[in-house]
Amino acid sequence: MSYSGKTFPEFKVGDKLVSPSITVTESHITLFAGLSGDFNPLHTNEEFAQKMPFKGRIAHGMLTVSMESGFIGMLLAGTAIAFLEAEYKFKAPVKINDTIHTELEVAETKPVQKYDGGIVKFNMQIKNQRGETVVEGYATVMVSNKRPS
Amino acid sequence: MSYSGKTFPEFKVGDKLVSPSITVTESHITLFAGLSGDFNPLHTNEEFAQKMPFKGRIAHGMLTVSMESGFIGMLLAGTAIAFLEAEYKFKAPVKINDTIHTELEVAETKPVQKYDGGIVKFNMQIKNQRGETVVEGYATVMVSNKRPS
Amino acid sequence: MSYSGKTFPEFKVGDKLVSPSITVTESHITLFAGLSGDFNPLHTNEEFAQKMPFKGRIAHGMLTVSMESGFIGMLLAGTAIAFLEAEYKFKAPVKINDTIHTELEVAETKPVQKYDGGIVKFNMQIKNQRGETVVEGYATVMVSNKRPS
Amino acid sequence: MSYSGKTFPEFKVGDKLVSPSITVTESHITLFAGLSGDFNPLHTNEEFAQKMPFKGRIAHGMLTVSMESGFIGMLLAGTAIAFLEAEYKFKAPVKINDTIHTELEVAETKPVQKYDGGIVKFNMQIKNQRGETVVEGYATVMVSNKRPS
Repeated sequence: MSYSGKTFPEFKVGDKLVSPSITVTESHITLFAGLSGDFNPLHTNEEFAQKMPFKGRIAHGMLTVSMESGFIGMLLAGTAIAFLEAEYKFKAPVKINDTIHTELEVAETKPVQKYDGGIVKFNMQIKNQRGETVVEGYATVMVSNKRPS
Repeated sequence: MSYSGKTFPEFKVGDKLVSPSITVTESHITLFAGLSGDFNPLHTNEEFAQKMPFKGRIAHGMLTVSMESGFIGMLLAGTAIAFLEAEYKFKAPVKINDTIHTELEVAETKPVQKYDGGIVKFNMQIKNQRGETVVEGYATVMVSNKRPS
Repeated sequence: MSYSGKTFPEFKVGDKLVSPSITVTESHITLFAGLSGDFNPLHTNEEFAQKMPFKGRIAHGMLTVSMESGFIGMLLAGTAIAFLEAEYKFKAPVKINDTIHTELEVAETKPVQKYDGGIVKFNMQIKNQRGETVVEGYATVMVSNKRPS
Repeated sequence: MSYSGKTFPEFKVGDKLVSPSITVTESHITLFAGLSGDFNPLHTNEEFAQKMPFKGRIAHGMLTVSMESGFIGMLLAGTAIAFLEAEYKFKAPVKINDTIHTELEVAETKPVQKYDGGIVKFNMQIKNQRGETVVEGYATVMVSNKRPS
């Protein structure tokens, strides 16, 4: 077993982490609709969506933040103990073929002896290819002091 | 075009709404890992997960709340204007083959003339087949006064 | 548990029901090919399909009617007992990015005491964004007299 | 380009064709629910389905026949011109992990000069691993006289 996730002691308040970017395609939206059961016409009906303020289908907000959570999940591969809490404010739409990435900043760290680790709070922004913030919020995770051996 | 989503005036503070239940399968987790990029071993490595506190792979927290968001998306099919904000507190794991549903309560409503609609805030709980709360939080959505004709 | 499917007594001959519309994407076709095993070049090979009468890849007929069956499945969420019979006549192709919906009309109802419900026969048309009928046929379903409590 | 689909003149009334068998898994059902939008609890909610006559989740009828149609699609790879018509009678449920196959018999053939091909009508049965018929019906397809060169 080999995981490179960061341990609790490796996070310091003020640390910044930037995810890879990914292009959000029509396929992501189709798959996410099927998984979540969310076939709202803003996401699945181009005829309808063309008449709405965003002029075309947009990604589900939860798809966008799921991609962001994937970055955190991989940052903590092998060291995450549990995902505790998250808050998201949706600021702008993600349209088909937008390319997004996540910027995290460590906002708080708090040791928790019982779990041999501690809580890390990340402030989070998801931005598109023009640098516009599409989502902002935070996520709080319980992280182990050690990597699995 | 025919959408049955509820309009803004149809929501009253205190209204309760209960989603259908769905069984969370290994397939959901595999598909969600692929979509989100979150291959954290808590979700994808049974050998690893067996040694962790939850004794087996668990669903991604974001998968669980995505299913909940699907209920809101369909509740507002044709009437949602935008998803504004959400907060989630993860209280207990969702294990493979757990059957979950969402309970919503309308916590606030606030008309917004500019959008010919208003903001609805739902308090939310996701529960499993034993009635245990696995996630609690809220979601805030901009909803139209009218259904599309 | 909360299902809003219609019960048998709620269907009357002549009732009309119209589904939401959905845009059929390349992703749907790719996924359906994988699920059905139908990689016929009319659906999966753009070079081949460009030389055929429809000038480009078309959706599998069974994908189109599966989407229609999804509407019936949700109309009877919690009240369907069994899907009995269906007939489909494919009238026109569904091309990538066409937006389709289903129109049902209750053609017959017949109580069946043994199942505490009855048989509902729907005449069905699937139409595209120009109002052209792409499929017509019928579907027959055994529906319960009661919603699950 | 190389396709081995059968041409119209290669079909004779009375010909029998048997598909490979395939095991229908939970994953097929999860994916088909997402594609079709059919989250009926007979297919997606194990708690609900356990209380129903079939004692557990069953495959969507349209998933079963989509797999059968995949066999026809591949039988006519490069030679199918259009899928014309189909009828299905659902005789017994397909449960998770059942292994199904399709048996076709050529019932009619009719040349159509305009398309340089003809119509083939197949009578069809889908059977499970115990030899029980789960679906019967027919499918009618326009087939070319020639293979693409």
